[in-house]
Amino acid sequence: MEVVSNRYVVIKNFINGTPNESNFEIKTDSISLSIPRGSGVVIVKTLYSSIDPYQLNRMKESSPSQNAISFSARINLGEAIDAFGVGRVVDSDHSEFKKDDLVIGVLQWAEYSIVHEFSTLNKLELIGFPLSYHIGVLGFSGLTAYGGFFEVCKPKKGEKVFVSAASGSVGNLVGQYAKLFGCYVVGCAGTNQKVELLKEKIGFDDAFNYKEEPDLNLALKRYFPDGIDIYFDNVGAEMLEAAVSNMNINGRVGVCGVISEYTDTNKRAAPNMLDIIYKRITIKGFLAADYMNVYADFISTTSDHIRSGKLHVLEDVSFGLDSLPAAFVGLFRGDNVGKKIVKISED
Amino acid sequence: MEVVSNRYVVIKNFINGTPNESNFEIKTDSISLSIPRGSGVVIVKTLYSSIDPYQLNRMKESSPSQNAISFSARINLGEAIDAFGVGRVVDSDHSEFKKDDLVIGVLQWAEYSIVHEFSTLNKLELIGFPLSYHIGVLGFSGLTAYGGFFEVCKPKKGEKVFVSAASGSVGNLVGQYAKLFGCYVVGCAGTNQKVELLKEKIGFDDAFNYKEEPDLNLALKRYFPDGIDIYFDNVGAEMLEAAVSNMNINGRVGVCGVISEYTDTNKRAAPNMLDIIYKRITIKGFLAADYMNVYADFISTTSDHIRSGKLHVLEDVSFGLDSLPAAFVGLFRGDNVGKKIVKISED
Repeated sequence: MEVVSNRYVVIKNFINGTPNESNFEIKTDSISLSIPRGSGVVIVKTLYSSIDPYQLNRMKESSPSQNAISFSARINLGEAIDAFGVGRVVDSDHSEFKKDDLVIGVLQWAEYSIVHEFSTLNKLELIGFPLSYHIGVLGFSGLTAYGGFFEVCKPKKGEKVFVSAASGSVGNLVGQYAKLFGCYVVGCAGTNQKVELLKEKIGFDDAFNYKEEPDLNLALKRYFPDGIDIYFDNVGAEMLEAAVSNMNINGRVGVCGVISEYTDTNKRAAPNMLDIIYKRITIKGFLAADYMNVYADFISTTSDHIRSGKLHVLEDVSFGLDSLPAAFVGLFRGDNVGKKIVKISED
Repeated sequence: MEVVSNRYVVIKNFINGTPNESNFEIKTDSISLSIPRGSGVVIVKTLYSSIDPYQLNRMKESSPSQNAISFSARINLGEAIDAFGVGRVVDSDHSEFKKDDLVIGVLQWAEYSIVHEFSTLNKLELIGFPLSYHIGVLGFSGLTAYGGFFEVCKPKKGEKVFVSAASGSVGNLVGQYAKLFGCYVVGCAGTNQKVELLKEKIGFDDAFNYKEEPDLNLALKRYFPDGIDIYFDNVGAEMLEAAVSNMNINGRVGVCGVISEYTDTNKRAAPNMLDIIYKRITIKGFLAADYMNVYADFISTTSDHIRSGKLHVLEDVSFGLDSLPAAFVGLFRGDNVGKKIVKISED
C-alpha cells in the first residue's frame, strides 16, 4: 500500500476585501494511493486546476448566498479548497471510474483528491484538444460565454455588444462568439496591452482601457454613439450603471459575475431605474449550469471554430501547486490574460 | 363663434424633490369653441383626467430619459400639462372625430384641449362601465398591471407574489389578478387603513405597513418564509433591495415605476448582484404600451371579473380643475387609495 505525501492549499483566515498570498497556506498530509474496498471513494491525481474569481465569495466569513447552491458554500478554514479541475484516477472503489481514467469535475487545490461526491465528477472524453481546454474554452468558462450570450442576451445580427473584463476567461469568448455571430463588439480591460490584444488578435471591433477613462458614461457614449443593445457584465458596480445609461430600448444585460464587487461588498451597482423602465431593459443573472440544454451545441460549435482557427484560445497557465495562491490573487489584480489555469502535475 | 374662458394648469418652476401645490398655477385663456375649417384640429371638453406619479419625472429640469419616448418629454414651464384623459368632442376638423364623440387619449389638465396630435387619441366605445374606468382599471393602469403581471412576471399557480404600493392604481390590480390566477399575494402600503383594505376587501393574503417596519429585509422574511417568486415593483430603492434578498431561484422582478426614487434622484436601488447571479433573478423594466398584443384579452378578462364582482375597482376621485394640483401632489404623500382621478366637468 503506497503512502505518499499530499500537498494542498487552505485559507488561513476568512477574506474580506482583496485577497493576498498571506491568506493562504500550503499544508502537507500523507495519503494512501490504494483505497480500501468498500469505501466507495476515488483517488484522483490533479493535472490542471481552474482558477476563478467567484471562489473569493466562498472565502468570506459570511457569503451572502452561501446556502443557495453548493458551489457557493463557504470554504472551511484549514481544509483543502475544492475547485474545478482535470485529473487522472489513481485508484477507485466506484463502479463508474477505474484506474487511469481521465476525469473532470470538482477536485481540490491539492496534488491528490479523495472524491466522495460524484454528482460533479465525469469521465473526460478527449476530442483532440489539450486537456486544459476542458476547464476553459470547452468547460464552464466557455459554457458561461456561450449560454450567457446566446440564451440570456438573445442577440440579433448587427446588434451592438459591450463586454467588460473582456480579456478574461469568459469575456474574450463572449466577444469572439458575438463577432462570429455578426455583432459589433467593444470590450474594456485594465491595461493597454490587453486592449491591443483584443483589437489586434481577438478581433474585437474596438476596446478601451477603463482605468484611463475618468468618466465611464462618457467613454461608453464615445464607443457606442448608437447605444448598446447587449451588455455582458463581468464586473458590476459603476460599469453596470454606465452601461444601463447608454443602452438602447429593449437592451439586455447578462450578469454572470461582478468581480469589482467581490472585493468590496459596499461597492454595488445602483443603475438608474427610470432608464430601466423607459428603455425596457432586462437585467438577468445566470449560471452556466442552467444552460446544459445547449451543451452539445456549445461543444460542437466551439470545437469547429477552434479547429478552423476562427476562435482564439487564450490561456494563462502557471505551474505547480505552489503557484495556486499567486494565480488566484492575481485575478483581482488583473494579472491574467484569458483563462487562468494552474498545471499541478504532468500527466 | 362662441368664445369661452379656458382654465388650465401649468408648472411655474421645474420640480426637484417632492412636489407641492405652490409649484403649480392655474391660468386662464379664452378659446373659441368652433374651429376654422382647414386647421385639422379637434377641440375636446375634458371630463376626467388621469393622475399618475410618472408625470413628476416630466416636471424636472433634466429628466434623465426625456428624449427616449414622448410621454417622458419634459413639460414646459407655463404651458398646459398634457395628461391622459377622457373627454367629449366640442368641434372637429378631423375626419375621424365628430362633435359629441367621446374620446380617450392625451388631453390637457384644462377645461378644454385643442388636439393637434392624433396618434394618442381614440374614440371611446363604452361597454357598460363608468367613463372613469377607461382611464383606470380598463385603461393604462389596468394594462400595466395585466401586461406586467402576466407577460413580464410570467406567473405560475401557487407562486408567492409581493406587490409594493399595493393600494395604488396598479398595485391593487396586480394583487387581484394574482389572487384570481392562484398565487399567494402579500402587499405593502403606507397606512394601516390601506393595509386593512387590502386584507379585508381586496383579498390579498396578507399586507403590511412598510412605515412601521424598521427593517424591510426582516419584514419580507416574516411575510415570505418560503421566499418571493415574483416582485411587482412600484417603488424601487430599499424595497427592491429587500425583495431581491428574499427572492427564490428564478425570481422575477417587474418594474413599472419607482415612486420613491422620483422625488429623490440620489435614492437608488443597489440590489445585491450576487443574489441576482446565484438565484438567476431577472429584473425587467416595462411600459404598458408594449403589451398591446394582450389588450383584447385584458379588456375581456377584466370586464368579466368586474361584472362578476370578483375584481374590486378602487377609485379615488377629486372634483374640478382646481383640485388637480392637490390631487397630483397627494400621490407623493400616499393620499390616494386606488386610481387617482380628477373629474373636470360633468358630461
